Amino acid sequence: MGRKVNLGIIGAGRIGRVHAEHLAFRIREAELLAVADVFPPAAEKLAVDFRVETVYEDHRQLLRDDRIEAVVICSSTDTHAQMIEEAAAAGKHIFCEKPIALDLAEIDRALEAVERAGVKLQVGFNRRFDPSFRRVREIVASGKIGTPHILRITSRDPEPPPIEYVKVSGGIFLDMTIHDFDMARYLIGSEVEEVYAVGNVLVDPAIGEVGDIDTAVVTLRFANGVLGVIDNSRKAVYGYDQRVEVFGSAGMALVTNRTPDNAIVSDAEGVHAAKPLYFFVERYTEAYVEEMQAFVRCILEDTLPPVTGIDGRIPVVMGYAARKSYEENRPVRLEEISS
Amino acid sequence: MGRKVNLGIIGAGRIGRVHAEHLAFRIREAELLAVADVFPPAAEKLAVDFRVETVYEDHRQLLRDDRIEAVVICSSTDTHAQMIEEAAAAGKHIFCEKPIALDLAEIDRALEAVERAGVKLQVGFNRRFDPSFRRVREIVASGKIGTPHILRITSRDPEPPPIEYVKVSGGIFLDMTIHDFDMARYLIGSEVEEVYAVGNVLVDPAIGEVGDIDTAVVTLRFANGVLGVIDNSRKAVYGYDQRVEVFGSAGMALVTNRTPDNAIVSDAEGVHAAKPLYFFVERYTEAYVEEMQAFVRCILEDTLPPVTGIDGRIPVVMGYAARKSYEENRPVRLEEISS
Amino acid sequence: MGRKVNLGIIGAGRIGRVHAEHLAFRIREAELLAVADVFPPAAEKLAVDFRVETVYEDHRQLLRDDRIEAVVICSSTDTHAQMIEEAAAAGKHIFCEKPIALDLAEIDRALEAVERAGVKLQVGFNRRFDPSFRRVREIVASGKIGTPHILRITSRDPEPPPIEYVKVSGGIFLDMTIHDFDMARYLIGSEVEEVYAVGNVLVDPAIGEVGDIDTAVVTLRFANGVLGVIDNSRKAVYGYDQRVEVFGSAGMALVTNRTPDNAIVSDAEGVHAAKPLYFFVERYTEAYVEEMQAFVRCILEDTLPPVTGIDGRIPVVMGYAARKSYEENRPVRLEEISS
Amino acid sequence: MGRKVNLGIIGAGRIGRVHAEHLAFRIREAELLAVADVFPPAAEKLAVDFRVETVYEDHRQLLRDDRIEAVVICSSTDTHAQMIEEAAAAGKHIFCEKPIALDLAEIDRALEAVERAGVKLQVGFNRRFDPSFRRVREIVASGKIGTPHILRITSRDPEPPPIEYVKVSGGIFLDMTIHDFDMARYLIGSEVEEVYAVGNVLVDPAIGEVGDIDTAVVTLRFANGVLGVIDNSRKAVYGYDQRVEVFGSAGMALVTNRTPDNAIVSDAEGVHAAKPLYFFVERYTEAYVEEMQAFVRCILEDTLPPVTGIDGRIPVVMGYAARKSYEENRPVRLEEISS
Repeated sequence: MGRKVNLGIIGAGRIGRVHAEHLAFRIREAELLAVADVFPPAAEKLAVDFRVETVYEDHRQLLRDDRIEAVVICSSTDTHAQMIEEAAAAGKHIFCEKPIALDLAEIDRALEAVERAGVKLQVGFNRRFDPSFRRVREIVASGKIGTPHILRITSRDPEPPPIEYVKVSGGIFLDMTIHDFDMARYLIGSEVEEVYAVGNVLVDPAIGEVGDIDTAVVTLRFANGVLGVIDNSRKAVYGYDQRVEVFGSAGMALVTNRTPDNAIVSDAEGVHAAKPLYFFVERYTEAYVEEMQAFVRCILEDTLPPVTGIDGRIPVVMGYAARKSYEENRPVRLEEISS
Repeated sequence: MGRKVNLGIIGAGRIGRVHAEHLAFRIREAELLAVADVFPPAAEKLAVDFRVETVYEDHRQLLRDDRIEAVVICSSTDTHAQMIEEAAAAGKHIFCEKPIALDLAEIDRALEAVERAGVKLQVGFNRRFDPSFRRVREIVASGKIGTPHILRITSRDPEPPPIEYVKVSGGIFLDMTIHDFDMARYLIGSEVEEVYAVGNVLVDPAIGEVGDIDTAVVTLRFANGVLGVIDNSRKAVYGYDQRVEVFGSAGMALVTNRTPDNAIVSDAEGVHAAKPLYFFVERYTEAYVEEMQAFVRCILEDTLPPVTGIDGRIPVVMGYAARKSYEENRPVRLEEISS
Repeated sequence: MGRKVNLGIIGAGRIGRVHAEHLAFRIREAELLAVADVFPPAAEKLAVDFRVETVYEDHRQLLRDDRIEAVVICSSTDTHAQMIEEAAAAGKHIFCEKPIALDLAEIDRALEAVERAGVKLQVGFNRRFDPSFRRVREIVASGKIGTPHILRITSRDPEPPPIEYVKVSGGIFLDMTIHDFDMARYLIGSEVEEVYAVGNVLVDPAIGEVGDIDTAVVTLRFANGVLGVIDNSRKAVYGYDQRVEVFGSAGMALVTNRTPDNAIVSDAEGVHAAKPLYFFVERYTEAYVEEMQAFVRCILEDTLPPVTGIDGRIPVVMGYAARKSYEENRPVRLEEISS
Repeated sequence: MGRKVNLGIIGAGRIGRVHAEHLAFRIREAELLAVADVFPPAAEKLAVDFRVETVYEDHRQLLRDDRIEAVVICSSTDTHAQMIEEAAAAGKHIFCEKPIALDLAEIDRALEAVERAGVKLQVGFNRRFDPSFRRVREIVASGKIGTPHILRITSRDPEPPPIEYVKVSGGIFLDMTIHDFDMARYLIGSEVEEVYAVGNVLVDPAIGEVGDIDTAVVTLRFANGVLGVIDNSRKAVYGYDQRVEVFGSAGMALVTNRTPDNAIVSDAEGVHAAKPLYFFVERYTEAYVEEMQAFVRCILEDTLPPVTGIDGRIPVVMGYAARKSYEENRPVRLEEISS
């Protein structure tokens, strides 16, 4: 049996538990040694459920734990950048949930800290690790569908988040579309230069009342000439709708939704199949395992993380550009956005 | 057997032959009595193939034929408006292929002539009559998917037209997207107020050399708040790609492509199915029959045509707005476009 | 324009009208000159609807009409064999609806008459001409899926026929499965040597009361080693279910059902698509056109009909073998069945 | 946290490792304490990989371990019955891989031992726990598709097992079809009374040389009148083909294959999707977790196991009936088979 990576997890909420389970039980090369959470009962429950030895209340204790080589940051967004700086200073490799921060200056400080420390930083754009999206990326990269011309991404959530969360989320473009911005860059392998965003409040007026929108269509112009479009909704009654399509000179590759079962019923009314998997935890289980596996492997093999700090920064810039575009109703070039 | 409508057809080219065959053989209530074409051999061949009694060289002879109640105008686009005026003056009901004209003033003169004469005018937006798109319209109109929020239309041709045609086509937005503009209005049942178009020359540089583009993405804002997007390409190697999707508060209705056969092969490489039907003649056969059937029926029953003159005018306005938007790289309101 | 074949049709019932419409309006090389029916109003209506010049009450008049080269026999099954003999004696090429007869001796007399006269006889196994089934046959014949091993045919009607018809139908194996027996021979390209049939009355007890069954599963052993199975039901509430599957050493080819439209609705309950096309007239429209086209072409080109007299005889033998198997609950070899 | 069940596993081969991983990492209510294997390195590797404390060489040591409440028997088939007897005598609850034995007398002795001891016995028919098949069972049981009429099962492996295994496997009906026999009973909820089996050697002559067949079609008659058919092949080049279909008076429920990804590529040749998941380990991962979960839960809640000893016995009887039917080429009633 080969070498293992010793990890600690910071934040024992929903996504922290997802990563903890995978590190503990699904990834052979990982050893999850410690968990830290400001709310000790959460850390303790995680520790019991996933057989984690050590529980810390303060993440700084965890960062001082010499056994630990790498940390997985799953705390709230407003703490990410600061924790990256601290973890880098402590010489730990870092996996951080997206977004690094909502403030570009903070992001830049965090990325500088990482660079100074020479540690690895992987950002949690989990969808890249989904087998279907990865397959489309491989097909595009292989040239099988020729030169890409058009990109379409549909990304709709089954339910809006609580209004309290919406208020501090940074808005739909920084909270939700950010995943699609990453997917766009990943699938096309080129940078977006300009975006144009339209939006509306169609799902829930309360979202509008706190200054956000719940429905959006964003046009993308890529440096390589590709034209792209993303559509988002905060509420698809039929479940999490996650589709992409790349159209090129020699063909098209697309991804349809995954379902919990493959049963099909035909009756006097029609032919009926299951709805898509409910939400990200169900839809991206494999992707979450694969992303953590990739993080552990890049440490073991000393290679570049598959989603770097700059990959974490650019979608935030795109989010600000989309917000500006929406507010001013005009196309906005990414270079207009600066920290 | 009920009363029949006596018809004459003007223009014996490809689309003229499609309508002639349907009027002659598929529509019980139609009697196709005459054909006129400036190129007599085409008219004669059409007459023999579809058992049409009378052949005219000049469409004005056909318009003077008292037996004829209704004409089907399939001549070249630049003649449509003039022929509508003449046919209206002759008291004939009119079916005219799209577009009525590329010039809004010409369209307005034609529509005024129609109104003055009190004849019926139906414009050839055939896709509305396709069983799948009609089904989506019915579903949207029934409220089954709730209030519409997002519209997506993908419309890609299998091959670009000849460059000589591209030169006089009015450009992609007036030649190709015009069908999608009509589909957008039809499916949503509301008017578009603003468009934003991006485009590129990715298929064939020769198209760019004559001042047109071959790839486009157009964002639509509807009066009722719906956000829409159309993507177009002049060349999909896998055939005619014609899909629509309406997403609403209670669900989604979409249309997938039709195929020539339903055979599926599984082998060591994967699972393989047929490409979509090749192009509009194959894809929209039923739609062409249904549209002509609807035209004949609206005469027999003295009802409003299902696609009116104004339905013919608005997509031309949208085409100009899209062109302006593309040229100026900014959203353009339809009210900016005037004849 | 090439030579045309002059045809007469005998029998102006439902299937007669289907063929008449296609011969009149869809097949360029055919000229439908006459129709005969013992019930003159039916013949007259057909003549008016499809512009047929001459109406006969007695089919023998039609057979004496010297202009006519070929006849299409669509009268009731019990008259087929006699009419084939008469038509052959009159030197006409013959298309005859299936089955030729329920009595093997009658079939043999009819086939002998055809052979003596040197005319062509095509039997109405229309499904061979369906684009999807033909595609599977081509795939099998091309070797793309290797050597065939297993054949599956599902064939279910949307509604049982009237009990009066069931009584004289010859039973499910000779009335309904006969089409699947033909399909089995067509797809595999080898003869069946033995059948085993199980059956039951599950749809309607009235069918049992007249001595028939409404649900059946038939196992087939082919000379080339392929194992096949057919399942039949007289009533599928979701419509006409017509699927085939050939599994071979290098892959599998199958056919799914065709639908009237390609609209798909996703809602809170699931994902919903249209039922299959309702019944044979809807499902096999193209196949009926193609079969008549093939008949006309084999006359024009003086080639063998694509479905010969012996192709008409063997499925009847298979029907009797299946019936005997069902009655005696044992596998029955086809050689046990003799006229 | 509730009570946990302490388990031991006997047999550290492929399927033993599958169950061990699930018991160790996926099932919260299970504690896997010990493993026994006659080949100690296998047991030790399993223990390390899945953090199992105790390793035994002899399963009798494990049976004497007082901490252990339940055992999971994954040793070779010829040892199952004996181990069940011993485990029952030791008062352990038992999960046993299928089949219990190839000899009915041995099975009966094992079932008697279980009954005497009052322990629970669950047999490893894993497919019942697959979400898609379970969904079909729920649909059938709910009456949504009315009274069942026809059952179709297709079950094809991607590769035949090694010839050495084929020799001792009991033949295709007892080794492979046995799973489909269980599925048939599960889906229909009624017993099979008679089977008719045809078979052939089409995949590999070596299989025929050791007295087995590799391709089979089995007809089933159920007590409730349903007619069923199973088709099997030892080699589908496109992967593990696992489909079922229940047709009833009010509709049909079927299951299509699951794929590793949902990417679809359209190109100039056609539309291409992924092959089915490769084999049972990939296809039935969730089913294996669910079956073990159900076993643990039936102990905790003291309920009947979802697959009982008699559910383990009947498919063996069906296998013998199918073999006899194949050998004698006649339908065989299950009551003809006795230990």
